[in-house]
Amino acid sequence: MRTTLLFFSMMLAIMSHGQNDQDRLMIKNFFDDALTGKQSYLWLEDLCEIGPRLSGSKTSLDAIHWVKSVMDTCGFDTAYLQPVLVPHWERGAREKATLTDRNGNSYELSLLAIGGSVGTPEGGLRGQVIEVQSIDDLDHLKAEEVKGKIVFYNPPFDQRNISPGSSYGANVIVRSRGAIAAAKKGAIASLIRSVGSSYDDAPHTGTGNYLEGLDSIPAAALGVQSAEKLHDILALDPTATIDLSMHCQWFDDAPSYNVIAEVRGAEFPDEIIVMGGHLDSWDISDGAHDDGAGCMHSLGALKLIVNQGVKPKRTIRAVMFINEENGTRGGIAYADSALAKNEKHIAAIESDAGGFSPRGFGMTASDDKRSKVESFLSLFPRNTISYISRGGGGVDIGPLHRADGTPMLGLIVDGQKMFDLHHSPNDVFETVHFRELELGTATMAGMIYLLDQYGL
Amino acid sequence: MRTTLLFFSMMLAIMSHGQNDQDRLMIKNFFDDALTGKQSYLWLEDLCEIGPRLSGSKTSLDAIHWVKSVMDTCGFDTAYLQPVLVPHWERGAREKATLTDRNGNSYELSLLAIGGSVGTPEGGLRGQVIEVQSIDDLDHLKAEEVKGKIVFYNPPFDQRNISPGSSYGANVIVRSRGAIAAAKKGAIASLIRSVGSSYDDAPHTGTGNYLEGLDSIPAAALGVQSAEKLHDILALDPTATIDLSMHCQWFDDAPSYNVIAEVRGAEFPDEIIVMGGHLDSWDISDGAHDDGAGCMHSLGALKLIVNQGVKPKRTIRAVMFINEENGTRGGIAYADSALAKNEKHIAAIESDAGGFSPRGFGMTASDDKRSKVESFLSLFPRNTISYISRGGGGVDIGPLHRADGTPMLGLIVDGQKMFDLHHSPNDVFETVHFRELELGTATMAGMIYLLDQYGL
Repeated sequence: MRTTLLFFSMMLAIMSHGQNDQDRLMIKNFFDDALTGKQSYLWLEDLCEIGPRLSGSKTSLDAIHWVKSVMDTCGFDTAYLQPVLVPHWERGAREKATLTDRNGNSYELSLLAIGGSVGTPEGGLRGQVIEVQSIDDLDHLKAEEVKGKIVFYNPPFDQRNISPGSSYGANVIVRSRGAIAAAKKGAIASLIRSVGSSYDDAPHTGTGNYLEGLDSIPAAALGVQSAEKLHDILALDPTATIDLSMHCQWFDDAPSYNVIAEVRGAEFPDEIIVMGGHLDSWDISDGAHDDGAGCMHSLGALKLIVNQGVKPKRTIRAVMFINEENGTRGGIAYADSALAKNEKHIAAIESDAGGFSPRGFGMTASDDKRSKVESFLSLFPRNTISYISRGGGGVDIGPLHRADGTPMLGLIVDGQKMFDLHHSPNDVFETVHFRELELGTATMAGMIYLLDQYGL
Repeated sequence: MRTTLLFFSMMLAIMSHGQNDQDRLMIKNFFDDALTGKQSYLWLEDLCEIGPRLSGSKTSLDAIHWVKSVMDTCGFDTAYLQPVLVPHWERGAREKATLTDRNGNSYELSLLAIGGSVGTPEGGLRGQVIEVQSIDDLDHLKAEEVKGKIVFYNPPFDQRNISPGSSYGANVIVRSRGAIAAAKKGAIASLIRSVGSSYDDAPHTGTGNYLEGLDSIPAAALGVQSAEKLHDILALDPTATIDLSMHCQWFDDAPSYNVIAEVRGAEFPDEIIVMGGHLDSWDISDGAHDDGAGCMHSLGALKLIVNQGVKPKRTIRAVMFINEENGTRGGIAYADSALAKNEKHIAAIESDAGGFSPRGFGMTASDDKRSKVESFLSLFPRNTISYISRGGGGVDIGPLHRADGTPMLGLIVDGQKMFDLHHSPNDVFETVHFRELELGTATMAGMIYLLDQYGL
């Protein structure tokens, strides 16, 4: 009996060892293919040439149809558009903010309207400025100190976090809620220091909110150097004024689409593994890292799997979600459809942290599921991913997770530069390094491959 | 008895837990200080402004004296110059390689003499070209196929390795030994495709060798695009010729110095922990990543430790070694001095992989010592270092390790871009990201701090 048991465990160990070797080899093939074929990188270049891809724009539709046409060449089982109505906002003609001090000296400030902002009245607006560090600071001011003025939120970016995304998360509330807090006190506009990590004058946009029943006041982000200029001038002259003109406009919701590629499972076609990024970007750059990179990670990963002749057990989808930046309509539509069709997703992976070297995944799931994914780590080459941390996922797969509890993972990359570029005119293709991008693609392929092989 | 033992182990666990918390806090302080103070980055900017720092050059001496003057302001116990005689080679006036085909079309090729090369004869040289992939390929040719020609080594860079340094290592032999192999077959010059990972036309230099008793023939590296141009033209016209002119010259060995900063240990002053980078660079760039970054990692790490008021138990040195690139005289002089003084080094750390985000350390030491250092990993923040791999160290600490077995560690960074820049005119300050550099500095400080606290 003991001999049989020993023999049996030895055989299991040997088989599992052999399986590990095969998996490791497959993953190495993904990396080799990615680094020599450069497919994600070449696709990303084409995508970035189409132009900015804000939801509802003509170029976003061009990108959608381009991606669909690429998917059609890849040997997947199917590729299709999933209709979604998206918000449609346009920045309009050039925004302008001119600071004038009491001596009549004037300075042009670099700015971008915050996404979704209303424009200024015909002819612009002018106001004195009240500077605060936070919404909390503003809340402590009396309404008469703020009324009729332009609120200027100027919180510095905390460089101490190892992951700059944490510092972004701490400050972004002035972008998302600053105009509401300012309007409550009777301000006529809301300006913020850009929520970005670099010391330059490129403004960083992003979505902002209004509150029903409260005045919607114009909201914009200043470049960091412009914010510091404004701070310095205000220290000398608190009566300095800003002339602000912005021409943003809202239009009716516009037809748009998620783009979905699918390879059907041979054994368990009803078990779905989905990965994706968001195809929309802000309107002022290529959206190369945010999130062209995540789209090409996902599409590229599915292509790497097909290239290796893998016949997946489960159904694998790569989804280019629309409207992550200002509405999440794509993520919601995907989840709604999954629910309506009673689809069973075993895992959802999102890449929306940029096209930099991979470092790990964040995962929102039970501890035993996370432990299972942790056991995959040893199959990846050194200097790719080294941990599966608790928490994480993504904005686009969030609705699915909340609807049916699908375990979700988010790719974590070496993001030291991400918030230098994020939502700014500097998020362009030239800042993407092909090896870093392709390591992400192969990492996604490896993770999807293992989830398919071993389930969750 | 069992109760006492239990109590004792509980106390040990609590104390060790408390100690861990203290260490974690100290390491966090290093990171906070590095990321907010940016000291290494600011120093690196100053260093890069001095100019290229090839051993024996005037600017290398300027850099040496500048570093010494910086050390003098840091609150260390001492800073001093350690004299070293270094090789002195100069590139001379502009190098030129003109490719001419049988139709009389001519093309300028982008090139850099390989460090240590002789110049061409007065008036230059002209020859037909024989292209090979490797020294092995060349060895298989008959001498009459090579005699009187210019050998052109054109091995492609293997993009498949996750660490591009491995691909560099595989190809660099054509740079270091190619001229010897070519001279053996009677060639008149040796050209190589630059050993670099980017697709551009920046040539990458580096050191080359000759063999006593064999002709020293001119040796140079072509930009990758120039190498491909040459390859394409040779495919059409094997009789195409190159006119080569190079004006390199050797001079007598020149006086130079390692620069050493030291904080003496309070408990075990005779136990030394040394860290360093090399202050010399090639003559065609700032040497920002190679190895200004490693120098500022080391100097910056010692400063972070002093800033925190740490009184180290052991003696800690930061050494800016001279002449890593073409002689290792600095590393040898340091080891010679250590031996002569009967110094006891407990560990040596080198940073010479660039100023990118840290990922781990390589370590050459016994397994139990490596395990001890592995036990430190949990004290570092996520997304800094995650492994201590077997093997590794550095060129400058190698002589010490070989002389007395000092355990050595080399910082490993996210090196996807390193060999795009390495030894080329593109290795400039503007390619260094302050957060990535400072994460390396704080990682070095943390490792040195723990080695000092717990020994090895």
